[in-house]
Parts: sequence; structure tokens; C-alpha cells
Amino acid sequence: MTSESCLAIVLGAGLGTRMKSSLPKVMHEIGNLPLIGHVVRAVQAAGSEELAVVIGPEMPEVETTVRSLSPGAQCFVQHDRLGTAHAVKAAEAAYQGSECGHVLVLFGDTPLVTPASFVALREELAKGADVVVLGFEAADPHGYGRLLTKGNQLVSIREEKDATDEERRVSLCNAGIMGFRREALAELVDLIENKNAKGEYYLTDAVEIAASKGLKVRFSVAPESEVQGINTRAQLAACDAVFQERMRQQAMADGVTLLAPDTVYFSWDTAVAQDVVVEPHVVFGPGVRIETGVRIKAFSHFEKAHVERNATVGPYARLRPNAQVGVGAHIGNFVEIKNAQIEAGAKVNHLSYIGDARIGTKTNVGAGTITCNYDGYFKHHTDIGAGAFIGSDSILVAPVTIGDGALIAAGSVITENVDTNAMAFGRSRQVSKSDRAAEVRAGLEKKKAQTKQAD
Amino acid sequence: MTSESCLAIVLGAGLGTRMKSSLPKVMHEIGNLPLIGHVVRAVQAAGSEELAVVIGPEMPEVETTVRSLSPGAQCFVQHDRLGTAHAVKAAEAAYQGSECGHVLVLFGDTPLVTPASFVALREELAKGADVVVLGFEAADPHGYGRLLTKGNQLVSIREEKDATDEERRVSLCNAGIMGFRREALAELVDLIENKNAKGEYYLTDAVEIAASKGLKVRFSVAPESEVQGINTRAQLAACDAVFQERMRQQAMADGVTLLAPDTVYFSWDTAVAQDVVVEPHVVFGPGVRIETGVRIKAFSHFEKAHVERNATVGPYARLRPNAQVGVGAHIGNFVEIKNAQIEAGAKVNHLSYIGDARIGTKTNVGAGTITCNYDGYFKHHTDIGAGAFIGSDSILVAPVTIGDGALIAAGSVITENVDTNAMAFGRSRQVSKSDRAAEVRAGLEKKKAQTKQAD
Amino acid sequence: MTSESCLAIVLGAGLGTRMKSSLPKVMHEIGNLPLIGHVVRAVQAAGSEELAVVIGPEMPEVETTVRSLSPGAQCFVQHDRLGTAHAVKAAEAAYQGSECGHVLVLFGDTPLVTPASFVALREELAKGADVVVLGFEAADPHGYGRLLTKGNQLVSIREEKDATDEERRVSLCNAGIMGFRREALAELVDLIENKNAKGEYYLTDAVEIAASKGLKVRFSVAPESEVQGINTRAQLAACDAVFQERMRQQAMADGVTLLAPDTVYFSWDTAVAQDVVVEPHVVFGPGVRIETGVRIKAFSHFEKAHVERNATVGPYARLRPNAQVGVGAHIGNFVEIKNAQIEAGAKVNHLSYIGDARIGTKTNVGAGTITCNYDGYFKHHTDIGAGAFIGSDSILVAPVTIGDGALIAAGSVITENVDTNAMAFGRSRQVSKSDRAAEVRAGLEKKKAQTKQAD
Repeated sequence: MTSESCLAIVLGAGLGTRMKSSLPKVMHEIGNLPLIGHVVRAVQAAGSEELAVVIGPEMPEVETTVRSLSPGAQCFVQHDRLGTAHAVKAAEAAYQGSECGHVLVLFGDTPLVTPASFVALREELAKGADVVVLGFEAADPHGYGRLLTKGNQLVSIREEKDATDEERRVSLCNAGIMGFRREALAELVDLIENKNAKGEYYLTDAVEIAASKGLKVRFSVAPESEVQGINTRAQLAACDAVFQERMRQQAMADGVTLLAPDTVYFSWDTAVAQDVVVEPHVVFGPGVRIETGVRIKAFSHFEKAHVERNATVGPYARLRPNAQVGVGAHIGNFVEIKNAQIEAGAKVNHLSYIGDARIGTKTNVGAGTITCNYDGYFKHHTDIGAGAFIGSDSILVAPVTIGDGALIAAGSVITENVDTNAMAFGRSRQVSKSDRAAEVRAGLEKKKAQTKQAD
Repeated sequence: MTSESCLAIVLGAGLGTRMKSSLPKVMHEIGNLPLIGHVVRAVQAAGSEELAVVIGPEMPEVETTVRSLSPGAQCFVQHDRLGTAHAVKAAEAAYQGSECGHVLVLFGDTPLVTPASFVALREELAKGADVVVLGFEAADPHGYGRLLTKGNQLVSIREEKDATDEERRVSLCNAGIMGFRREALAELVDLIENKNAKGEYYLTDAVEIAASKGLKVRFSVAPESEVQGINTRAQLAACDAVFQERMRQQAMADGVTLLAPDTVYFSWDTAVAQDVVVEPHVVFGPGVRIETGVRIKAFSHFEKAHVERNATVGPYARLRPNAQVGVGAHIGNFVEIKNAQIEAGAKVNHLSYIGDARIGTKTNVGAGTITCNYDGYFKHHTDIGAGAFIGSDSILVAPVTIGDGALIAAGSVITENVDTNAMAFGRSRQVSKSDRAAEVRAGLEKKKAQTKQAD
Repeated sequence: MTSESCLAIVLGAGLGTRMKSSLPKVMHEIGNLPLIGHVVRAVQAAGSEELAVVIGPEMPEVETTVRSLSPGAQCFVQHDRLGTAHAVKAAEAAYQGSECGHVLVLFGDTPLVTPASFVALREELAKGADVVVLGFEAADPHGYGRLLTKGNQLVSIREEKDATDEERRVSLCNAGIMGFRREALAELVDLIENKNAKGEYYLTDAVEIAASKGLKVRFSVAPESEVQGINTRAQLAACDAVFQERMRQQAMADGVTLLAPDTVYFSWDTAVAQDVVVEPHVVFGPGVRIETGVRIKAFSHFEKAHVERNATVGPYARLRPNAQVGVGAHIGNFVEIKNAQIEAGAKVNHLSYIGDARIGTKTNVGAGTITCNYDGYFKHHTDIGAGAFIGSDSILVAPVTIGDGALIAAGSVITENVDTNAMAFGRSRQVSKSDRAAEVRAGLEKKKAQTKQAD
């Protein structure tokens, strides 16, 4: 740790009652990652060396989420909710015990701040600021605290209700996010009082205290779109929309064609390579990787799946966790793939469920094929070799192995292994009865007529 | 009926030729309810005691729609179309025979006016107005009639072509919707003349006549978005977009998470409870109720369906009329449920059609299961007990009963009842022929080569 | 050819490196037609008599695309890329050898210019202009070349960097598209020099040369939305969005109801008739025609398909090339139709694959029916007569013929022809074993317990 190292304290104890939810506010998701996860990833990308998180009582899932992204994070519980300074104080052990020179204080419900904006705060601290505040130019400043500045010094944060007419015309507003020289934070937090309407301790009060002590208080400016906090589900959706637009623009800049970008939903970690074409109405769940040259047809849905180059997927394809689609393979419509390797050039084109299986190279799986992988207690594996041909509507009762080049007759129930190059049948012979259909129909028509009469 | 009771007259006779449609204009739908239905619901919500509707000749479906929402509504036919005052006159029997003190005149093709705006008109009448007009502040007033006011008195409605430059700068415009003291309406309608370019009788002319008689003419203001009338399909779509946005905002305010609100289509009566998560690309047809804790995955489609708490539905699930999904049940991908009860904890996860059936508690229905409910003449019922296991690709030929705890082998055709805890098979034994696939392939390759040679 | 005939030269040699694509820039698509195809169609609609296209080396697919729309088009290869005048010069043989009096020079990457704007250029030439330039009023002119005019004469095109403050306030900007009297073009192109930073030959330099020679240089103005060029995938998506909006507005003006227009994706040649209702989330690939009275339900997908009047399609229906759906027919959910005629009144309602087939009038195809049309080498045909009933989960192994009025029992594998009015079975009898399910379950539970113990 150097004097320019940075401890990030993320405040995430809020209940979020306006969300009307049983879930802690920071566990609501955008792009399939909890809000607090976005904040953690952004400060990590901005190079923060240490992380502390302040959560509410009985929020173990928040701690789990944070640790999954940052195993060394310290978590503190804020038992009462008495304002932002009080929340920071809950993490006192973190900043008192830290060897970092700088501390950033962030909000777990403000997920869109970019690493660049955190870096800008760190740079102000590196240049000698004792305190630095993140501001934004508000399109409509009404209701926000205004940043009153003199040169590069931040003099005061003026709340709307206390502002003069002239101050109200200031459009540079307070985003709440702050940085501190670590010793300054320790000193200032303890000086903040709760002489206000709600009786709470506000971290922003540190600005005037610091200014009155002659400390260097600086500010940095981020776009308004980054600093939107989330208090309602409508705001959650609005932030997700901003996030989606970022992901779409990034994908297109990387050489991905999105036919109708507004209809494609990305997750935070979606990875799509150059010269992939994504048709309208596609949903990427978490953990998806698509290699170059793939065409994703409309109405496809992915979770934890990997599609190798030049494959074709969809329309109406669902790739579930551990689906792996090989080079040039085809996954067609109304097909579900789960925990299965579809090897290079293989085809599963219509109305099939392939779960817990391997489909060998260039094997063709006919329409309506189903792997019976579950007996109610255990999941079993189906292994199909290369160059095989699985006739339509085949049922493969796992565990079962089908050899290379084997041929399964359409409509077969396969319960035993099939050797390489063997052909297997598991179906009945056809029997036809002349004129029987006409008789059946006559009977049903008579019954129908009687039913109507009886009505 | 009291002197403050209200008769609402809805004008719905317009042909809507610019819709280019064989359907009467007011029968076009937004959120799966005809336009006139939205108007009827809004005046009902505003507490109107009586309802009269003026329709065109040969529009029985309009009458049916109105009566389905308001059984006591009176319907009148306007044979010629000679203006709004002429249309009101068609309903003379309603307002002459009414004991209501007040009358509102509304348009069946203006579906977004909120109950609050109707209530505001009623309040002006309750305060003693003889006539009241609904106005709106137009972003671009060009082309609209302007409301010329003096204090709270409405002096005149000035048409664009008759307006002075100063009058054209007025942005308060006429929405056409009006309220009357009942006796005033009866008197004024008969005084309206048709000395204008089209030779029609305009109800708005009542304003100047009333003013000239010293009556109290008042106005009330609604947001412009409420008073959009519909004359084209583009306007229909624009109004539906406003309606959808209202529904989405209301759902989110109620504690529903919409991952991508713009991709979710609501019906007028969709009921979604708190802490439901709705993924992108979901369509709610009419008559849908979703209880708390449900997750609706992407690409799902609902009509007259009920999903109980903590169930999971989709992706690509279609719940059709009378589908009932029990507590914690799972409906998976490419699954259609129609007129069926899926009881608590049951699972129908893949590629199935369940129609006219009951699936008992905790029963597992394998992939590709189909209930054969139709013989071309009659629909039959399938009853499956609790804790049963229906193997993949089973065919259940209704009428048929499967007992509690029964087990159906994969790929079976079930035509007879299966007892509790019994196991049923209806499939052929597998036969394998060594090397037969290689021979078949050789034959087909030879044929293919010959075909190419012949080309 | 007359003196007012017109040769259109489309410049399409650009590599489009900012697209980050292996595809030539003009081959990227909007509405499923390559960019250059949109330009070719627009000049055709504007009545151009001759067409020449300048492409880059090794772009045979561009030539193929152009010829498919305009068989007589001449194609020229520009080997070096030394500016727009250099590109025009590559097509010298076209304009030197032409008998057309006029020449238009267009860009293959500017796909949204309407025929009307091209006609406006032609009219200026017809009125005697030697040179005419297409301009647009820029919302933000920054960065564009400004059109400096005196009356109807275009004096100069001033680049941003060379402009005075006053000139920068001009909002009329250069779209680059130009028209010429043919002899003027021939003369002017040879006078253009490359004394500029990049050492390239710019066709716009013709304006000042022409003006200095006293030629008549005119201009015409198009909406800014028409003249957007495409250099990135984000711009590609933005242009496609404009194109989609045009298609949606046109469809609605033609009497089509789009419930959620923003979720419907059109191709360039989609033809949808009056009184068709299109629900949300529908994708039209190329070559689709929908007749009047059809309802297209949500999540449907079409390519080269034809749906006749009053049919119902979807939700989740996929009509692939050469699918033909007859009058009043029903195609339901999770159904794929390929190269098949579904005749009037026939129904394929659930989870089926119908490929290379005919389904006769009023025939009912049960859920889960699959035509096995492919043996790995050849495609075979299935022919089903009128009034037949195909039981659920039937497998029709082609080639096979099913007669009128035939009845196929549910779950049958049909490998041989079935006569008119005959009934065919191809399935096993059901066998039930009392209490066997309970035994199986007990065994699996024991195994499960052992497995857990072993863990």
C-alpha cells in the first residue's frame, strides 16, 4: 500500500422501502448483476486496493454477492440507519486499520458511475485534495444540493431549501459520492453533528467543516446519467435502460451487428465477438460467450452458454447453463440445450430437448428428439458419437451411448446402447384398416348430433 | 338520483374511414379493450350513475361491448352523421328521461381521459356551472380551437381560421369533451344551428349561445396526452403506447420488476402482484392474474390465465384461457397450457401440450408430453394424480386417468387408465442391427452419386 | 434515351474499416437488403435509365447483389481508393459511352435517400443546371461542408476548417450526392486536382470549378434523416431504425394494425394487407406476403412465406421459405412450416414440424406431429389429403401419402401410404404393472440415500 492507495467504502444498508420489495435494495439487478455488484466492479476497474461494504442487519446475500466479486472485502453491519456519516462510521475499523492513503465513499444503489469518474476523484486526491466531491451538471437542478465553488475549491454544498435565488441558478449539483485523504476522513466524520430535521449524520457536512479548517476541498464532474440513484422500480428500469444502451453501443463499436438494438437484452458479462449478427428479440442471461461469425436468430435465449465460431443459433433457441455449441454447428427452432456439448458441425434443428449429453461431430439430430435425462431422482448422460443420424422423434433414455455413425430409426425409444455403425429400431409396425376412419367419423358424428339434441 | 348525479353520453357512431378498416372505429383496441370500453370504464370510475351510447347503424358489436361493461347502458343509433350536437340529440330520450342533474358528453374514440379529468368536470357542475368544457394546454396549438376565457368564465371557443393573431397565441385548446346542467343541455342543443361549411351541428357552439344567455360557462384542464383522439392506425398505436406506459409505471410503482419495460405488453385488466419479476418480451392478453413471488421468464404469453405465488413460468411458455398454475409450480420452455390446473409444485418443463387436464401436486411431466384432448369432434379430459412421473414423450389419449404416484415409461401411448402407484408401458422393444447403418449409408451415397451424374 | 435520360453511378468501393467487419461495407443490410440494394431501388424508382456501380477489388457479392436488382447494371472496379472523383473516373466508360443526358452520382452507403430526392435533382438538371448538389438542413452543422449560395446558384462548398464564423452559421450542408449534365461531368472530373492533405480527388471540387467557368450550379434540399451515411455499426442500426419507422408508418397508413409497432421488424419487401392485425414481437424476413384479415400473433417469424386471407398464425409460429398458409387456416404455437402448402381451413396448432409437404383442406394435424422429410441425403415429400385427422405425436416418414379423410392414431409411426378413409396405427399396446411404480421409486430412493451416504 502506498500513500496513493485507495480504500473504497460502499454504503449498502438501505432498505429501499419505495421499491416495495422483500429484497434488500442493493440486491435488485440490472443486467443480471445486483446493483452493488456494479459498484464493486467499477471501483475495482478504477484500481481500488481495498474494499469495505456497509450493509444492513440480516442481509447475508449482499455479503455473498460482494465476496463473489471481491473475496477480500470487509463487510460491516450498520444496525441503526442514522445517515451517511453514521454509515461510514460503521466501517471505522476499515479506514482506521487501512494503510491506504485515500478513501472513496460510494453508494451501493448508484450503479452507473464509470471507473473513469472514480479515477478522476482519485486524481484530485493524488494532487493533494483533502476532500473531493463528485458533482454533475443537472438538466433540472431543482431539489438537488448545489456545489458552491470558488476556483477549484468547493466552498459549500447548499441544499435547495437553504439556497438563495442566485444559488438556485447554479446547475452543478452534488452526487453524494466523495473522496478523502484517509486521516481527514477519520477526523471529519467525528465532527459531523445531527442538528437537522431528521436528526441524522450527513457525510456531505464534512465539506463545510473541512473548508472552515482550511483544508483543500475539490470537486470533479461526472455526466448526470452516471449518478442516478435508485429508489423505485421505475428508476431501476431507467438505470437498466442506460446500462443496456452502453452495452449495445459497446457491442456495435466492437463489430457486432444488432439488427434492432433496442430489443436485445444484455447481461453485465455478455461477451460477443466481431462479425456476430444478432437478430431482433434476443436475451443474454449471465455467463454467455459468442465467438466470431455466429448468427443469432430472433427470439433466442442464453444463460451460461458458449457458442463457437460460425455456428447458427435460433430462432427460438434456448441455450441453458453449460450448453456448448461447436464450430459451425446448427441449433434450430424450439430447441433447448442444457449441460451438453454439441460438437462441430452437428445439427439439432427442430423441437428438441438435449440435456446432459454430447452430440458428436457432424451428427444430425432429427426433429422432436428428446434425451430422457431424469428419472425423478438422478440425472443421466447421453453420449452420441460422430456422424450419427438420430431419426425424428427419437427418445434416448439415459444413461445410453450411441456409437459413431449409428442410425436411429424415426420414432424409436432407445433404452440400450447402440454400436458404431449399427442401426436401431424401437417402434411398432404400421397396421392400416380400410374405411375404418369413415366408420369412426360416422360414429362420432352420430354422437355429436345426439349431444346437440340433448342440449 | 340526486341533482349531482351524472348521465354520461358517449358518442361512438363515427365510421373512421381514415382507419381503412371494416371494423367500426370505436371497436379498435388498445390493451385488448375496444376504445369505447376505455371510455366507459373511465366514466364508471368517475362515478357516473347513468350511461347512454350513441352508435352508428349496423354496429351491434359496439352495443355488446358497452353492455358487457355496463349492463344498464342505453344505446341509440345515429342514422345520419350531422355533427356532435346531432349525435347528442340522438340520445335525447336519455337526457330528457333522466333524473340526473348533470350530463357529460364524451367521445368513444378518445380513450385516454382519466377518471380524474371527468371528476374535475363534475366538480365544476357541482359548483354551479351550466356548461363546462375540457381544455388542454397544447404544445403546438396550431389547428385546434382556442378557449378564450375571462377569469373562470369560458367566453368562446375560437376556431383557428377565425382567430386573430393574438388569439392564435393562446395555447389553451378545446378537447371537445363537455359537461352540462341537464336542463341547460336540453335547451342549448335545440338552439344550435348548422350554418357552417359542412352544414353540421356542432356541440361546441353551445358555449357561445350559453355565454350570450348569461349562463355560467366554465372550463377544466387535462394533460394533452389524455385528450388525443384516434383517426388513424398510427394514432391508435400512439395512444396504445401511452396506455402501455401508464400500465408499466403503475406495475413498477406497485412493486413489480420489469427488466425491459418497453418490451412488455399489458392488457387493460392485467393484474401483477408485488415482487413479481417480468423478464423482457412478455405479452399479457386479457384476463391475467399473477401472484406475488412469481418469475415470468422472457418470451412468455398469457391469456385468461392465473399464476399462483412463487411459480416460475417460461421462457417461451404460453398460458391459454383457463390455465391455472399452482403455488411454486414450474412451467418451462415451449410449453402450452390450456384449460388445465397445474397443481402446487408440479413441473411441466419442456416442449409439452397440456390441454383439458389436471396435473396433480408435485407431479413431474417429462419433455414432449402431449395430452390428446381432441378427437375431431369432442374434447376430453386427462386427470393425473399427485406425485406421478410422466416419462418424456408420453402421449395421453383422453379421456384417461392416471393415479397418484403412477409412473409412465418414456415414449408410451397411454389409452387406458393407470392405477395409483402402477407403472405403464406403451412402447416397443428396441432392436439393433449391427453395421446396418453403414449399409444404409452406402446405399444412399450411391443413389446420391447417381442422381448427381444424371443432372 | 433522350437528353433527359439519366445514368446513375453508385459508388460502393469503400472498405468501411470502422465497421470492423470482413464484409464489404455496402453489403451490410438494413431490412434484410444490402445498403447498396436500397440505393439501387431508390434510383430505379426515380426512373433512372442506366446504372453503373463502382466497387472495390474482390467484391463479387456486391456485383451479384446489384445485378439481382438491375440485371443491366455495369460494374467497375476501383483499384486504388483516391477519392470520390477518382471513383467516378473508374466508371468513365459508362458516362463516356452513355446516351443519357444526365448523370447522378450516389453513395452505396447512404441508403435512405428517397426517390423523391433523386427526382428533385433530375428536375434541376432538366431545368438547365450543369451541376446540382443535394443539401440538407443540419440540426447541428458542425463538421459538415456548408453550401454557400447566391439565389439559386451554389457558389461553393466550404469545409468546416476553411469556414469563416459567418459561414459556420450556415446550416445548409453538403450531402455529397450530385447530379451533372453528362458532358459537364466528363469535363469537370478531369479538372479536379488532389492538392489537399490526403492527396485525394474530391468530386465536390467540381462545384467551384464549374462556378468559375460560369456554369449553372444548383442545389436541392432533402431531410437530414435521408442523407445519413453509414460508417459504423451504430450508424447502421440508426439507419435501420429510420427505415423500420418508415415501414411501420406505411403499414399503418395502409390499414394494418400494429399493436406495438416498435417491436415489429420489417424487411424491405414485406407486403401486409389492410385489416391485418400484427401483435407485438414479430419478425418479417424477406419475401413475405400477408393477405387481408390475417391475425399474426406475438413472437412469430416469417421468411419467404405467403399467408392467405383470414388465416391465423402464431404465437411462436415460424414460417420458413415456401410456406404457404391457405385461407382461414390456423398455424399455432411452436410450429415450423417449411416448403409446405397448408390448404384452406387446415390446422397445425401445436409443437409440429411440417416440411416438404401438403396438408389438405380442413385437415387437422395433432400436437407434436413431425414430417421426417430428410434421410441425411435426400429430402422427401409428405402428401396429406383433405379432411384427414392426424393424431398427436404422429411421425410421417416421407415419402408417404395419406389419403383424404384418413385417420392416423395418436403416436403412430407412419412409413407406408394410407388410403382414403383408412385408419392407420403404428404404436404399441399399453401394458400396466400394479404397484411397479412404488417399487421403482423405493429402489431409486434407496440408491439416492446410499449416494448421499457415500458423499
